[in-house]
Amino acid sequence: MNQILIQNVLLKGQRTDVLIEGNCFKTIRPGIAADDAAVIDGTQFAVIPPFYNTHTHAAMTLLRGYADDLKLFDWLNLHIWPAEAKLAPEDIYWGSKLAILEMIKTGTVFFSDMYFMQHETIRAAEEMGVRAAVGLITLESVPDLAKMLESVNDLIWESRRSFSGRISLTLAPHAIYTVSTATLEKIAERSRNDQMMIHTHLAETQFEVAECRQKHGCSPVEYLARVGLLTDRAVLAHAIHLSDRDIELVAQAGASVNHNPCSNMKLASGVFPFEKMLKAKINITLGTDGCASNNNLSMLEEMKFAALLAKSADADPESGHMHDVFNTATVNGARAFGIDAGVIEAGKLADCVLVDLDNSLMVGDYHLTSNLVYSADSSCIDTVICDGKILMRHRQVPGEKEIIAAARKCCDKFRK
Amino acid sequence: MNQILIQNVLLKGQRTDVLIEGNCFKTIRPGIAADDAAVIDGTQFAVIPPFYNTHTHAAMTLLRGYADDLKLFDWLNLHIWPAEAKLAPEDIYWGSKLAILEMIKTGTVFFSDMYFMQHETIRAAEEMGVRAAVGLITLESVPDLAKMLESVNDLIWESRRSFSGRISLTLAPHAIYTVSTATLEKIAERSRNDQMMIHTHLAETQFEVAECRQKHGCSPVEYLARVGLLTDRAVLAHAIHLSDRDIELVAQAGASVNHNPCSNMKLASGVFPFEKMLKAKINITLGTDGCASNNNLSMLEEMKFAALLAKSADADPESGHMHDVFNTATVNGARAFGIDAGVIEAGKLADCVLVDLDNSLMVGDYHLTSNLVYSADSSCIDTVICDGKILMRHRQVPGEKEIIAAARKCCDKFRK
Repeated sequence: MNQILIQNVLLKGQRTDVLIEGNCFKTIRPGIAADDAAVIDGTQFAVIPPFYNTHTHAAMTLLRGYADDLKLFDWLNLHIWPAEAKLAPEDIYWGSKLAILEMIKTGTVFFSDMYFMQHETIRAAEEMGVRAAVGLITLESVPDLAKMLESVNDLIWESRRSFSGRISLTLAPHAIYTVSTATLEKIAERSRNDQMMIHTHLAETQFEVAECRQKHGCSPVEYLARVGLLTDRAVLAHAIHLSDRDIELVAQAGASVNHNPCSNMKLASGVFPFEKMLKAKINITLGTDGCASNNNLSMLEEMKFAALLAKSADADPESGHMHDVFNTATVNGARAFGIDAGVIEAGKLADCVLVDLDNSLMVGDYHLTSNLVYSADSSCIDTVICDGKILMRHRQVPGEKEIIAAARKCCDKFRK
Repeated sequence: MNQILIQNVLLKGQRTDVLIEGNCFKTIRPGIAADDAAVIDGTQFAVIPPFYNTHTHAAMTLLRGYADDLKLFDWLNLHIWPAEAKLAPEDIYWGSKLAILEMIKTGTVFFSDMYFMQHETIRAAEEMGVRAAVGLITLESVPDLAKMLESVNDLIWESRRSFSGRISLTLAPHAIYTVSTATLEKIAERSRNDQMMIHTHLAETQFEVAECRQKHGCSPVEYLARVGLLTDRAVLAHAIHLSDRDIELVAQAGASVNHNPCSNMKLASGVFPFEKMLKAKINITLGTDGCASNNNLSMLEEMKFAALLAKSADADPESGHMHDVFNTATVNGARAFGIDAGVIEAGKLADCVLVDLDNSLMVGDYHLTSNLVYSADSSCIDTVICDGKILMRHRQVPGEKEIIAAARKCCDKFRK
């Protein structure tokens, strides 16, 4: 079986060897002998878990910088939706590849996606070697909902025959305000029957909460529970405007909440109650949202925003502790999607990143976690391994030039 | 005279050539012939102004990650001040070099510093080719204030004989709560007589404002005016807790205010009133503060924090517009310190950065400013030129390995 031996690498403050066999970590101790292994000299590096980005719209990377600094509905109505109407399958394919390239370069090996023409995103993720939970988006407003739901069936059927173990599918009702109660109930039933994960936007704006109270007489969280979607298979994106009672319900259900600090700040959606969620022992995960509202996919940057926003909003520098934030970006994200990874331990899936300790952003060198959360950028990420395969070595990702050129060509149709 | 010709580079959406002669931009137009010039092929790049970091404590880069996630006074009393007591001149020298290395790698060519043993910081800045306004810090609490003020005299005298044009000195009373009224008045007098710039912390915490009101019966801004320090030679760091009347006074005086979003968020100091300052037509500049409270010196990251914090705090995505934020990081900083730079125009000082347009963080490629403010990180910065000299080419800075090794050695004495 394929073996990789990382020698003399820093892991939790100690020098050790790490042996990968197949797609798992096999042995972790100093002085491992493995004659057939490909050897990586880890002297200059620390080995850390990679990042798991639990909410994004990967192909929207094509719309990076397309429209900024606008009120939400102007941004959507005048810019984003008209641009999205022009998207063709090859745009989704190259947009997803561009996104995955950026993710790898910033140390991310998994993304939970919600977008259209999922075949193309799956093809991109398969080819580039990352993990993905691809959302089968449901939007009541599409011209032919029946056809959309049928394509979901096809994709689920196909996934069983031909997808690698790195790809999973989620049921992704866009939001409670864009999908009818009847459809939400059908999705809930399918999630129960097939044990499928649910990925949905929830309580992103105060407007959504007010509308839900008016239409359904309850909070978005209560409504989600009512239609049967608030379970331990659900990952709730944004989850900003939650009452104490809502937080209690989410905790009882065992659902995960996905925090998107950059997008929430950029769109002025509100402040995610980080410490309250933490105290309720809810599994908090971290996501970048799409590039149209961030405008990048760096989980390093997202961690810093998560930590600093919690401190600033609570007027308390002890909020948003680096260790809690680091967990949201790594092990919590993996856990939410049932991926047995996110920590460097024998038996776990072999996902890891080598961090360049000789990068100036990593000196002083007192606390690795602090440097990762508060200082590092993509230039510190040297090597990325996912499922036992090297996706980037010395910052080189195969096919990079081709992806940049093709993605830039796709951008042409959106130029104003 | 030394010439550099950058050919076919993107400037404000157009391809052009840029000729540097000596330390200034000489000609900017397509098709320049210059036989003796060193030629840079600009095809893959955009040329932009570099960043001017108007508030930092460079040598504190040695204390990156030393203590985080703590209440302000625990952080200072239990960690930062005891560590600072151990600083020796070689720490200041290598700490400053480490800081300047990081600044160059993130596209910054100028820093306004406030720290101790300024000779060492000046030596580092001279050797590495950047610009610096080095603050002659005054703190009433030091054991021998008279000696501190005498060394200020020596340094001012020396600066006239032997410093390059890239180095200037500022008078830097630490803060209104650490320097007596009598000393502040003396500093104000010297600033008037010698036309020296003033660099001071102001209105960083609500505690400072309350204490000032109690001791002096007025706001920190009013008190600064009273002692004669509120002039167009002043750069006020933080300037968070200002009343509308304070903002009016700062505008009338023509003082600059330096915004430190990361540090302010990390220490939970409060939110800088970005849009109010802008409407009052105050010159807003941007700074990273020291690495102990940020924890890096990236002006790219600082711009994103400035923009997103303004939007989030105002609950308005139109606040913190990218163009305003980009100006704070570039031309406004240069203007505050009387440096005739910060825009790429013939006759201006030849400070510029080449941005790698083939970096995945720069695609979609609709708006360069958007990509710089909201997406870019240090990996996008390919080349840095300051005062007509190349400080970094293809991300290589001369002496980098030696600086990292020496700085890491300095860190040893601080390990707990």
